[in-house]
Amino acid sequence: MIKFTPRNSLDSPPYLQLAVDVPYLSNVKKLLSNISNSVDNQLLYELGTPLIKNAGLVNLTPIYKEKHPDAYLIADLKTLDVGQLEVTLAKESKVDACVVSGLAPQATINSFLDACSENNIDGWIDSLGLSISNLIVKIDSCTTKPKVIILHRGIDEELSGKKTVLDNIKAVKEKFDSLVAVAGGLTTSNVKIALENGADIIIVGRAIYQSDNPEKVIQEFLDRFK
Amino acid sequence: MIKFTPRNSLDSPPYLQLAVDVPYLSNVKKLLSNISNSVDNQLLYELGTPLIKNAGLVNLTPIYKEKHPDAYLIADLKTLDVGQLEVTLAKESKVDACVVSGLAPQATINSFLDACSENNIDGWIDSLGLSISNLIVKIDSCTTKPKVIILHRGIDEELSGKKTVLDNIKAVKEKFDSLVAVAGGLTTSNVKIALENGADIIIVGRAIYQSDNPEKVIQEFLDRFK
Repeated sequence: MIKFTPRNSLDSPPYLQLAVDVPYLSNVKKLLSNISNSVDNQLLYELGTPLIKNAGLVNLTPIYKEKHPDAYLIADLKTLDVGQLEVTLAKESKVDACVVSGLAPQATINSFLDACSENNIDGWIDSLGLSISNLIVKIDSCTTKPKVIILHRGIDEELSGKKTVLDNIKAVKEKFDSLVAVAGGLTTSNVKIALENGADIIIVGRAIYQSDNPEKVIQEFLDRFK
Repeated sequence: MIKFTPRNSLDSPPYLQLAVDVPYLSNVKKLLSNISNSVDNQLLYELGTPLIKNAGLVNLTPIYKEKHPDAYLIADLKTLDVGQLEVTLAKESKVDACVVSGLAPQATINSFLDACSENNIDGWIDSLGLSISNLIVKIDSCTTKPKVIILHRGIDEELSGKKTVLDNIKAVKEKFDSLVAVAGGLTTSNVKIALENGADIIIVGRAIYQSDNPEKVIQEFLDRFK
C-alpha cells in the first residue's frame, strides 16, 4: 500500500514520482495548478534536467515549496563533474535529493555522494547509458552508497528502440540496500510488473504531463499501488 | 596569430575560451565588470554547467549579450538525454553553440548534433569521462559531425590525479575535420604546448576567474598565442 505524504523522508515505499520534464516555468505553474492537494501530497516531485538548465534551480524550488511546503523534491542534475559544488547548489535551493549521472567519472560520483552525506541531502544515482554490469561496478566503488538507484531508459534511447529496465530491478535490489527507482516508458499497464519486481519508486513524466487530465492519470497510477 | 573579435564564427582559430564555472549570477556580473572591452572581444565565452543549472539559461544570456552583443557564447549543457529539446532551449536563449556529453547514448548525441544543424547553431561534443578510443568510436558513429571536439579532463578527475589531455590532440585532429578544444589544467606554462600540438581552442576557467586580476591573466594567456 502506498503511504501518503512523504514529508521529507522515503521510509514508506513504494512511491509515485512525477518527473517534470517540461522546459518552461509557465508549463510548471500550469501543471501544478491542475493537480489538487488531495493528489499531490502522495507524490515525489522531480525537477527535470532541461527545466533546471533552462529556468535555474534558484527560480524553481520556490514555486514548488509555495504549493507543497513539505513535498519531497528531487533535483535531476545528472551531474558529470564538480560533484561537491553541484550538491552545494542543490542544498542551497532546499531540495531533498539530487542526482548524479552513473556515467560520471568515479571521482565525481564519490565526491557527489560524499557531499550529500555531509550536507544531509539524499544522493541518488542514475543508470542512464550504463549497462547493468557497469552500473554495479560503479556503485560497488562508491565510498558513500546512494540512497536511491534509478534504473533509467532515456527518451532518446526509447525512441531508438531500447527495452524498458524492469528486468534489472531484482538484480540491483539483491546487491544493494539502496531503494530502486524505475524511469522510462512506465505506463498504467506495466507499473504493476515494476512493483511486483520490487521497484520502490515509479517515475512517470510524459504520461502525466502530456495528458489532458494529469490528475486523472496520476490517480490511475496510484490505484495500481493498492 | 590569434584573430580578435570572433563575432559569431570560428573561422580564425586559435581562440582563448573563458569558462565561467562560477555558480552565481552575482559572480558573473563581477567577473565581466573586471574585464575591459579591449580584452573581452578576443574571447569565446562559455556558460559553465553549474552556472546554467543554478541560474538558468534564460537568465544568463542577456547578461553577456548586454556587454558583448557580438560575442560567441557556448552553453556547456553536457546533455545526456532529450538532445533535440536541449538544443531548442539553447537556440531560444540565443547562444552560438551548445555542448553534448560524449558519454550520452549514441541516440542522444545524434539527435543533439542533427538538431544543431537544423537550428543553425554549432554543436560541440565533450570527451569528459571517455577514453580516446571510445570518443573516436562515438564521433565516427555521428550522423552529423561536431563543429568542435573538447578534449576534457574534469576538475574531479584532476583532483584524483588524472593527466592532462594534451597528448591526444594530434590523434583527434588527424581523424576528424572538427576543431579541437582542450580543457582541464591549462596554464600559461603549458598553453604553448597545446597550441604546438594543434589545439584550436584553449579553454581556461579557474586560472582566470579565481585570480585577483582576471584581465591580467587573460592577457598573459593571449600573449602566448603570438
